[in-house]
Amino acid sequence: MSMTSLSRSLSSTVSATAIATSLLTVQSSGRGFTDITAEIAKFVKDAGAKEGAVTLFIRHTSASLTIQENADPSVLEDLTTALDRLAPEDAGWRHDTEGPNDMPAHVKTMLTATSLHIPVLKSELMLGTWQAVYLIEHRTRPHRREIVLQFAGASG
Amino acid sequence: MSMTSLSRSLSSTVSATAIATSLLTVQSSGRGFTDITAEIAKFVKDAGAKEGAVTLFIRHTSASLTIQENADPSVLEDLTTALDRLAPEDAGWRHDTEGPNDMPAHVKTMLTATSLHIPVLKSELMLGTWQAVYLIEHRTRPHRREIVLQFAGASG
Amino acid sequence: MSMTSLSRSLSSTVSATAIATSLLTVQSSGRGFTDITAEIAKFVKDAGAKEGAVTLFIRHTSASLTIQENADPSVLEDLTTALDRLAPEDAGWRHDTEGPNDMPAHVKTMLTATSLHIPVLKSELMLGTWQAVYLIEHRTRPHRREIVLQFAGASG
Repeated sequence: MSMTSLSRSLSSTVSATAIATSLLTVQSSGRGFTDITAEIAKFVKDAGAKEGAVTLFIRHTSASLTIQENADPSVLEDLTTALDRLAPEDAGWRHDTEGPNDMPAHVKTMLTATSLHIPVLKSELMLGTWQAVYLIEHRTRPHRREIVLQFAGASG
Repeated sequence: MSMTSLSRSLSSTVSATAIATSLLTVQSSGRGFTDITAEIAKFVKDAGAKEGAVTLFIRHTSASLTIQENADPSVLEDLTTALDRLAPEDAGWRHDTEGPNDMPAHVKTMLTATSLHIPVLKSELMLGTWQAVYLIEHRTRPHRREIVLQFAGASG
Repeated sequence: MSMTSLSRSLSSTVSATAIATSLLTVQSSGRGFTDITAEIAKFVKDAGAKEGAVTLFIRHTSASLTIQENADPSVLEDLTTALDRLAPEDAGWRHDTEGPNDMPAHVKTMLTATSLHIPVLKSELMLGTWQAVYLIEHRTRPHRREIVLQFAGASG
């Protein structure tokens, strides 16, 4: 293994800490993935973020977050299939207040992410070449979803 | 999509950064979910947290964290069932030092969360209406579990 | 439940905030787990970290991160088996650009972690006794993987 020091900004060099918090509202079109990478990049730019990290937090228990491949759309179809197999609708769930899709949505949320953390360096998100950030809607019907974006670090 | 700037506190306006670290000890009553939301809210209040984020870190590999529905208790029963199906006891595990429940507990921990991140704004946790924070005990018997709570941000 | 205040450093006592960002490059030897705990501890030491947190972010969608037991190597074998069962190669995936192992690697990444957060107190990672941090390589062949390490907090 090897380690490269990209930046080491100790007390004297990072002269100020900024916190910026925004609410991103996404209207999903029902079960599936929505790419929100551009919105996060815009938030980083608007906040004047230089070095630190952006955290994402989704305020729901039937929709979640993931970072996945951005190139071939069939990856997202296969991921949807994989989640359906891990949490099928006909598995004899006790909780079905909002229909057969209700409990599978909670299970899928538990198996993926409610919060994510992406480092920022030189004013850029440090995502890999093939990474995009997605909201995953687990309910069959469209929903309005809220994601809290927060940058903490050096800005200017 | 639309974005609302909830708060944008740049260098000049956030005049100080606080870090507060506490250890939450939870005695689980065996396999299942324990709601720890009230303890986290108390920590945020005691720390004088204003804007930033609370991170949770569980110091175990056979218990984990999740954010899930807080309304219908049958959701938690179904989530327990779902985890049992994804990591059954009779799956021919090699590692069984602490009994048939040993390895399923590790698998369930890997599939859920060891660390969580919840934003704080105006001194309040930004949880959604239906969200609660849970410790998930994966072992059959009761255990004493440690969770590190840390706030970083502006306080006063 | 009981809560112990390990440290509560409010504005006046934490006089400076440091952010240190490094890139850890790991050459995996194909499917399986690589323990990176020592590298993270070295990063914490080199950054002069005192109180705060280290975040890890893996820049890939076919490799991921987890915190798991560090004692019995058969745990890691069983975890590999568990992931193979949850995302088998012969499940009729649509996306197979890089072979039958391609799509299972994406599913396994989605079910584990892309980012992790570990608190630091008194210059030490607050890992539990049995916890180690692992890179999980999901592809069959060896790959070069990049992990961004970032400390934010008080240093000196």
